[in-house]
Amino acid sequence: MIELNEKSIVKIDGDVSSPKGFEAKGIHIGLRYSKKDLGLIISEVPAASAAVYTQSHFQAAPLQVTQKSLKKTGKLKGVIVNSAIANACTGEQGLKDAYDMQAACADMLGTEPDYIAVSSTGVIGECLDMDKIKTGIAQLKEAKAGNGHFEEAILTTDTVIKNTTYSLTIDGKEILISGAAKGSGMIHPNMATMLGFVTTDANVEQEALQNALRDITDVTFNQITVDGETSTNDMVLVMANGMAENQALNEEHPEWPLFKEGLKLACEDLAKEIARDGEGATKLIEAKVVGAKNNLEAGIIAKKIVGSSLVKTAVYGTDANWGRIVGAIGHSAASVTPEEVEVYLGGQCLFKHNEPQSFSEEEAKAYLEQDEITIFIQMNEGNGEAAAWGCDLTYDYVKINASYRT
Amino acid sequence: MIELNEKSIVKIDGDVSSPKGFEAKGIHIGLRYSKKDLGLIISEVPAASAAVYTQSHFQAAPLQVTQKSLKKTGKLKGVIVNSAIANACTGEQGLKDAYDMQAACADMLGTEPDYIAVSSTGVIGECLDMDKIKTGIAQLKEAKAGNGHFEEAILTTDTVIKNTTYSLTIDGKEILISGAAKGSGMIHPNMATMLGFVTTDANVEQEALQNALRDITDVTFNQITVDGETSTNDMVLVMANGMAENQALNEEHPEWPLFKEGLKLACEDLAKEIARDGEGATKLIEAKVVGAKNNLEAGIIAKKIVGSSLVKTAVYGTDANWGRIVGAIGHSAASVTPEEVEVYLGGQCLFKHNEPQSFSEEEAKAYLEQDEITIFIQMNEGNGEAAAWGCDLTYDYVKINASYRT
Repeated sequence: MIELNEKSIVKIDGDVSSPKGFEAKGIHIGLRYSKKDLGLIISEVPAASAAVYTQSHFQAAPLQVTQKSLKKTGKLKGVIVNSAIANACTGEQGLKDAYDMQAACADMLGTEPDYIAVSSTGVIGECLDMDKIKTGIAQLKEAKAGNGHFEEAILTTDTVIKNTTYSLTIDGKEILISGAAKGSGMIHPNMATMLGFVTTDANVEQEALQNALRDITDVTFNQITVDGETSTNDMVLVMANGMAENQALNEEHPEWPLFKEGLKLACEDLAKEIARDGEGATKLIEAKVVGAKNNLEAGIIAKKIVGSSLVKTAVYGTDANWGRIVGAIGHSAASVTPEEVEVYLGGQCLFKHNEPQSFSEEEAKAYLEQDEITIFIQMNEGNGEAAAWGCDLTYDYVKINASYRT
Repeated sequence: MIELNEKSIVKIDGDVSSPKGFEAKGIHIGLRYSKKDLGLIISEVPAASAAVYTQSHFQAAPLQVTQKSLKKTGKLKGVIVNSAIANACTGEQGLKDAYDMQAACADMLGTEPDYIAVSSTGVIGECLDMDKIKTGIAQLKEAKAGNGHFEEAILTTDTVIKNTTYSLTIDGKEILISGAAKGSGMIHPNMATMLGFVTTDANVEQEALQNALRDITDVTFNQITVDGETSTNDMVLVMANGMAENQALNEEHPEWPLFKEGLKLACEDLAKEIARDGEGATKLIEAKVVGAKNNLEAGIIAKKIVGSSLVKTAVYGTDANWGRIVGAIGHSAASVTPEEVEVYLGGQCLFKHNEPQSFSEEEAKAYLEQDEITIFIQMNEGNGEAAAWGCDLTYDYVKINASYRT
């Protein structure tokens, strides 16, 4: 990996329509009561595209359709997304509807169905209102682009829109990488789903893009947890349309690590925004693990910590409860030598040599009152490093999930 | 497995002192403010004993001492247990204290230290007050036995004592199997621990007893979850003193399956009582999975369901939210064919053929208002069966775990 110059990747304002040749729209078609519920991303030219899909055995219909088409073409001209209805667990009818949604969007854009990705998020087990979907797709043709309308249209129980944009230079050309996401836990009635859409005007070979996305997803989107649930509709999609006119990027390109780092930063931002917006959450919790046997084990430990209900409630209660952190590490599948483990919070060491360390409770409490908490773990086993992100567990999580129907 | 006659195993009133030759005591020695906090089980004669221990990498000192002694002798004359302080993450001092506690109890009973098991439950990272422990052990000599004092002395955040007793006949002799347990999640400040103590006057070979306990723990204590946490002090211990004078039991004995079933019923009762008493819980949730690829996968699926925060909150909200159950099954590590999965609640089918089924919401809600809920799953993959037990997730869970120090 080359050394990255601080200034070589710059975060800027923007959205998924910022990279050259991309347009993004969002409108209200009546699937939700009043909020926008149908979104579209268009690329002026076919964009080399890559995606990763939910690990759930119950993969929703739109994912099956998108996966099939993307395998065929490796390129996309558009992505059509609806919220409110997940079109999951809807049997044959659901599959037919997803294909019809893809076809209607292809017609509207004057392209082949296999160049369109389909995505849905919302209630499981209900079928789409295809009249509304088709009328909506027609309306999208004339709809005004930009202004974060797409980001709004993909939300369900989210409280804020989520996007990020980075600028970098490759082959002397400015390249933008932008992302939009939704998700705040696999949640609300049966509302599900973490969705990520990344656009870039970089010129990238499809296979390299797919490999990069898979690697990056493992250390970003797959390292967040709100309630340990996995949705039937999770998908992260990257479109690279090449309009920045750099030399085609692949693992051999000298600046490949720079592009990959930019893509990772965008995905990490989106992942953290999702965790921060977890249901009922008041804080973002980061677990940073170093010195693990390897990166994989570091990731397992980090995710165990942010996934622990006891750690989550302790952070909510601004309680420097190192015993719960040790407990979470202790029952992880990773290699753990109790005498070697060190637990740090806000610069103070809470636990070391398998014994509690004396620390200032006041200082720790003050640190925990911030809205971003980092729990730092030194395993002293090897050189493995990883981070994971979650949120605190609050009364509102129970309220939202226990009483939505009343 | 032989066919078990309904009447061959009978549940009766009793406690761990009910089997012949056992005595149990519990007193207050000031580790807790006013509740009993030191307990003792004595067997008149050395009892063939078996134990299983926490999977946590941070195994508490008393477990290390007990494990070492039991490996040596395979027999126990006594078990000394304190609550309030877990003597976990206490380094060298903790180990020395656990050995001293074992020695003091052995002196008092006039036996060898290796015939004494030591167990602690309570706050992690604090050392025992050994003066109180030693004075208390001396007081136990004269203390009155029975009356559930032992069951009280081992509790921490539990709201009720937990015990069970079964009677069966082997070789024409009546045999009693009794159990006591504590635990309501790996919980409160850093209070930890699920403890199970089973006494029986059956004559059982130690190796057979150890194998039976390991098998049974997998389908009982290891199938409960309150908050997905594992304590540093978890232990289940069985003592069989042979005073019922049956022929020594092992896998070859024709009535071995009867004894093993009795032991399993006792452990299952204790496991369910722990789940029911989970922090903040208002209901016991049972997930019963049949038709899985094998028993192991059935167990994985069942535990995934009762471990799901969304299922737990839905049950608390008396919401027949099959989507969350499907979601939990969907991201289990087991083999799942979506079209084959069937979800039942209170006799109604909620989900089948990868589609929602029409059912009476009222009926389902009424069923969910009971204090024992069974979620029944037919996987149609094979003949694997298993159950798991948990509790609902309520405001009180958050309250107990977020605000204990204030």
